[in-house]
Amino acid sequence: MSEANRQILLDRLPQGSLTLENFRIVETPRPRAAEGEALLRTRYISIDPANRAWMMGATYRPALSAGQVMAALALGEVVESKDSSLKPGDLVTGDLGWQDYAALPARELTKLPNLAPVTHLMSVYGDPGLTAYFGLLDCGEPKAGETVVVSGAAGAVGSLVGQIAKIKGCRVIGIAGGAEKCAWLTKDLGFDVALDYKAGDLRRQLKEATPDGIDVYFDNVGGEILDTCLFNMNVHGRVVGCGAISFYDTDAPPYVVRTMAIRMLMKRLTLRGFLVMDYYGQRERALQDLQAWVASGQLRVKEDILDGLENTPGALIGLLRGDNLGKRMVRLG
Amino acid sequence: MSEANRQILLDRLPQGSLTLENFRIVETPRPRAAEGEALLRTRYISIDPANRAWMMGATYRPALSAGQVMAALALGEVVESKDSSLKPGDLVTGDLGWQDYAALPARELTKLPNLAPVTHLMSVYGDPGLTAYFGLLDCGEPKAGETVVVSGAAGAVGSLVGQIAKIKGCRVIGIAGGAEKCAWLTKDLGFDVALDYKAGDLRRQLKEATPDGIDVYFDNVGGEILDTCLFNMNVHGRVVGCGAISFYDTDAPPYVVRTMAIRMLMKRLTLRGFLVMDYYGQRERALQDLQAWVASGQLRVKEDILDGLENTPGALIGLLRGDNLGKRMVRLG
Repeated sequence: MSEANRQILLDRLPQGSLTLENFRIVETPRPRAAEGEALLRTRYISIDPANRAWMMGATYRPALSAGQVMAALALGEVVESKDSSLKPGDLVTGDLGWQDYAALPARELTKLPNLAPVTHLMSVYGDPGLTAYFGLLDCGEPKAGETVVVSGAAGAVGSLVGQIAKIKGCRVIGIAGGAEKCAWLTKDLGFDVALDYKAGDLRRQLKEATPDGIDVYFDNVGGEILDTCLFNMNVHGRVVGCGAISFYDTDAPPYVVRTMAIRMLMKRLTLRGFLVMDYYGQRERALQDLQAWVASGQLRVKEDILDGLENTPGALIGLLRGDNLGKRMVRLG
Repeated sequence: MSEANRQILLDRLPQGSLTLENFRIVETPRPRAAEGEALLRTRYISIDPANRAWMMGATYRPALSAGQVMAALALGEVVESKDSSLKPGDLVTGDLGWQDYAALPARELTKLPNLAPVTHLMSVYGDPGLTAYFGLLDCGEPKAGETVVVSGAAGAVGSLVGQIAKIKGCRVIGIAGGAEKCAWLTKDLGFDVALDYKAGDLRRQLKEATPDGIDVYFDNVGGEILDTCLFNMNVHGRVVGCGAISFYDTDAPPYVVRTMAIRMLMKRLTLRGFLVMDYYGQRERALQDLQAWVASGQLRVKEDILDGLENTPGALIGLLRGDNLGKRMVRLG
């Protein structure tokens, strides 16, 4: 095993959209585990819209700063452990970052069950699956027969949200960019309708697709699409605020959601901001359902796996452009 | 009893702020009750921010149109009844409008209990009281020890919200316009702090007044004050959207709430739009508590009563300017 550790640094914070020039690859000596730590070999790096949001300022974590190893959730394998809770070969997730190896305190790592394929621990049984499950069911509270709309529908979370809503007996409309994604949503995943926001006039498309209005809108994008959906909400509708990718990768002022206040009042909407970590304590309940649905074929899991640490910057830039179908991750050697 | 019926018409819809020129007084014959209707003599007209919002377009009711009798909730006394559910002398509320007499279907009227003072049926035991009660307790879900902020704090609803929050053991900060209102909130109503938004730098004032952040924000005003409060919300904070008076009386584009989306996500806020009619079915529960608190002196009720139908336009214009302390209404002869 090589003693070198390749690291990708966030060399400069982005001005406007993220580019390859914001990153720099360096080689450093492999770190060593101190007392209470484990040395981890990175196997899969999760590529998430949130990676870009962390560059904007403090969120639920401190802002990223120039010069640091790019932060990221990753799945790693324990190489060496100086904590009794972990042993070589164990799989864990944590903020390993964009590098071959990381030494981290055991208390900052989550030990994973051993199941195949291991990548499902990063998709349907990881944060995207838990986000879809708790965000839709606990925050959105859909009832059978209701209309559920999800944006970012071809993404890691959105593709699961729509399918879970179908399992719960809802009518499901997905919003995604491009004909290929839309065809995948309706033909492979069973969405009732998929709307291509790049095809224009989303307001009219949405109105035609939701003649009975929208009961639950699961928002992954924010901005203009959120605004459009607010126009069609039913009285007592629920909006789950899960993400706002439309304004992560830009310095431009965010599109202003003009209708939120007045619609919220008149339609008596509930809008809930949602972060999956608040639900980690209830993870087992979700995993039971998710595993049963995957086993029965009711829930189809799409993973978009790229290879090579050196391709991680491009993988994130592409995700922000909407290149991915399902859960994007980068596999290391 | 005179056979004439004075009516104030919404002569022209306002452009910009409402003025006396938007109204016109006419005299018509007193209406007669048809089968199933009652003839009502108007005793108290409720003056509400919503009166102005109805002129902006369809809300929870159709938009008002030029030439109609100005709509308004009012307390009336049955003069003549052609419905078995009502008899002369009964007190009711309904959309009697700005006029001396109205003939309305009995099914559109709510019969009132007989209690003194009768004006309390329009304030603490009417929509303002129910709005404060259900909006704060059911939507805001304050817990003892939490920090509650209410805007429009010297108004009909806000003044009750703050006092109910105190009864529930919360720390209460009111936001109002002017030193006189603020002094009233702290000295007479027991608010912990009152902030005068007209005194400038509300952001700094609020930050100093809420060192532990805000758990519940009860919003009667929308716009810039909502934005300011969102900056100080705690994780899992709740925002009750009850009104947005800051943009009712203007044609200017509403102040944009810039921080809502990002704060909602990162702070996992819940924002709930609220209309009191959804809670009418639970009215008895609220009235029991409200009556007990009024009887014990824990809840002080302020009513701002003007006289004369002809003064109703000015009463509404003044309310929109913030002239009132507590619940404003107009008493008819």
